[in-house]
Amino acid sequence: MASQPRNLLVAQSGGPTAVINNSLVGVIEEAKARGEIGTVIGAERGIEGVLREQLVDLSREAPQTLRALRQTPSAALGTSRHKLKEGDLERIVEVFRKHNIGYFCYIGGNDSMDTANRIGALAAGLSHDLRVMGIPKTVDNDLVETDHCPGYGSAARFVAATLRDAGLDTEAGAASTPVKIIEIMGRHAGWLTAASALAREGRADAAPHLIYVPERPVTVDAILADIERVVRRLGMAVVAVSEGIHDAAGHFLAASSAAVDAFGHQQLGGVSAYLADQVTRGIGLKARFEKPDTMQRASTCLISAVDAQEAYEVGAAAVRAMLAGQTAQMVTIVREPGVAYQAHTGLVPLAQVANRERRLPEAYMAGPEEGVTDAFLDYARPLIGPVLPEHGRLARYPLGK
Amino acid sequence: MASQPRNLLVAQSGGPTAVINNSLVGVIEEAKARGEIGTVIGAERGIEGVLREQLVDLSREAPQTLRALRQTPSAALGTSRHKLKEGDLERIVEVFRKHNIGYFCYIGGNDSMDTANRIGALAAGLSHDLRVMGIPKTVDNDLVETDHCPGYGSAARFVAATLRDAGLDTEAGAASTPVKIIEIMGRHAGWLTAASALAREGRADAAPHLIYVPERPVTVDAILADIERVVRRLGMAVVAVSEGIHDAAGHFLAASSAAVDAFGHQQLGGVSAYLADQVTRGIGLKARFEKPDTMQRASTCLISAVDAQEAYEVGAAAVRAMLAGQTAQMVTIVREPGVAYQAHTGLVPLAQVANRERRLPEAYMAGPEEGVTDAFLDYARPLIGPVLPEHGRLARYPLGK
Repeated sequence: MASQPRNLLVAQSGGPTAVINNSLVGVIEEAKARGEIGTVIGAERGIEGVLREQLVDLSREAPQTLRALRQTPSAALGTSRHKLKEGDLERIVEVFRKHNIGYFCYIGGNDSMDTANRIGALAAGLSHDLRVMGIPKTVDNDLVETDHCPGYGSAARFVAATLRDAGLDTEAGAASTPVKIIEIMGRHAGWLTAASALAREGRADAAPHLIYVPERPVTVDAILADIERVVRRLGMAVVAVSEGIHDAAGHFLAASSAAVDAFGHQQLGGVSAYLADQVTRGIGLKARFEKPDTMQRASTCLISAVDAQEAYEVGAAAVRAMLAGQTAQMVTIVREPGVAYQAHTGLVPLAQVANRERRLPEAYMAGPEEGVTDAFLDYARPLIGPVLPEHGRLARYPLGK
Repeated sequence: MASQPRNLLVAQSGGPTAVINNSLVGVIEEAKARGEIGTVIGAERGIEGVLREQLVDLSREAPQTLRALRQTPSAALGTSRHKLKEGDLERIVEVFRKHNIGYFCYIGGNDSMDTANRIGALAAGLSHDLRVMGIPKTVDNDLVETDHCPGYGSAARFVAATLRDAGLDTEAGAASTPVKIIEIMGRHAGWLTAASALAREGRADAAPHLIYVPERPVTVDAILADIERVVRRLGMAVVAVSEGIHDAAGHFLAASSAAVDAFGHQQLGGVSAYLADQVTRGIGLKARFEKPDTMQRASTCLISAVDAQEAYEVGAAAVRAMLAGQTAQMVTIVREPGVAYQAHTGLVPLAQVANRERRLPEAYMAGPEEGVTDAFLDYARPLIGPVLPEHGRLARYPLGK
């Protein structure tokens, strides 16, 4: 080919995760390894960087920087929640032409896949050859057509480790403060809250003792009754609750309290605080709450090694697919049948993914005490990486009185 | 000696820490290694286990259990916040006599040192020889007469790592949500909040951008002005705030909002949520908050190796001191002069420690942007263990428009 090789543009979008930089590095390293691609260009803050032509040359980044980014949470290019407006697509095409972009990779969740899909559809009508790939990323694990989403495994590891630690802490002081409410991310889907069950592995009556996900409508009264029953039996209750739990009419639980409005519940920031207060007022038990919020998606020390590697691979696979002539697809993760966990990447048309949401299926949900089924545990366990460290427990040999 | 060797009783008290079990194991292993001591007995839930005669034989615990406990946060024997009542001391003496207790170790904070001090004073008047030692433990780091307290280093490591991760996460999405408020434990003393400054090491303008401790009275208006100024300069503000910050009249900031009452502010659980709301209402910036609460004292993955080792050593030192004839003392940590961090254990009379509280000295505090002085950083840095993992950052070589 006598013509100049086409450049690749990559951007990160939506909420950061602990491993989204792995996908970026996967794109950069795979693109640099192939002669067919010119410069690897990064857009700052997602599609906004394209619209504003705030672009950086990623081909020049040092290898040690890329290596370090594989252990660095959050989005190194910055992210955006910009939804496409009128005129945006024309501006994007203009910038792409100017910078000789032949390949576009968008790393993100549902909204971002919609953006990628619209750019992909537009590209089909251009004279200029533009290939578009979506690279999945979300701690919510709610993209359809993929076994799971990069970012979920690390957030799930954080949640499982945090619930295990909280179980130990609550048990030690249960005589004075028997209830602990922990608020987990997930407005519409309970995948992350469900992962709290991985804290229990192998131990009866271990935390969490109650799990509430948005897929199962619930009332404050029902939760208080559950907590009272569990405390009566175990002397304590550690409760994992999705930020988005709601009643059968769709009203968020925290929104039933006027006090919560003052706490910016547009971010649903109040359900754990609200429930802790209700526990004390309603059933007279002292309760504390934890709201780790974005710590769930940004913890360096709880990155899942499997998740980090898969995030890298979906990035690299996107580049390979485009060079093989594919466009307007999202890379997926396909789990292979068999006992030992193995997965490979696949492709699905972006149009099948955009603006759809995958919730916890019935087969993965149980009542609030179990929370999840064995099928869910089998699904989620391999994604969080090596087993969590075992804790020591005293045998407590009783001494005669 | 023809008489039966006297037994040792040990208990854990107050809020758990990530390394309080190391002190327990230090006591058990040192006591078992010495022929002079009979059985090592544990009281369940602090002094309550003595009063109720709920005792366990720790000498029989398997070596692998003790090894595992050295990596296990929270208090394996359970803890108590019981304050001594009339008749309690008599009952304690009775139980001690019955079980031939010649040595008593109480692992805890200020309140626990008061309990130990009262038992120690009583012991001086007994015919029966009873030696009493306090073993320091508190994430608040507010015991006097010791360089620092076991438990602080691990909690400080958690706070530093969390603020560093939060800085990355906030930066990526700062265009839409520029402000993040993180609530740190510490009702009266700001040691733990100050440790957030260790997140910055070596990087200009790194998070936290503002630090508020209880030692420096402050108003909501002043905080909002600080945040507005920092956001104007950096495009973001990550704020570390002690749960106990208050104004010059001593009123907790969160308590100024009626809405907070619904959030159980008897535990001071509301200042971060309250401030995040005030930021949005007062200066129109979108803000999120994190309230890690007891995660700060119970994180398995952020145990400081130095802290764990020192917690073990103060336990072992307590046993050695009693066998050398000491009583009514608390073990201290004494930092040695010199550039490289080194410390050894010391002793101080319990009467000098009980019911006193050590706050951040003036020499360690700076204005809200710096938060702390270099002297504080030099003090705290060695306590959190190995340096936090370095994160990768793109050089972001700009591309011409």
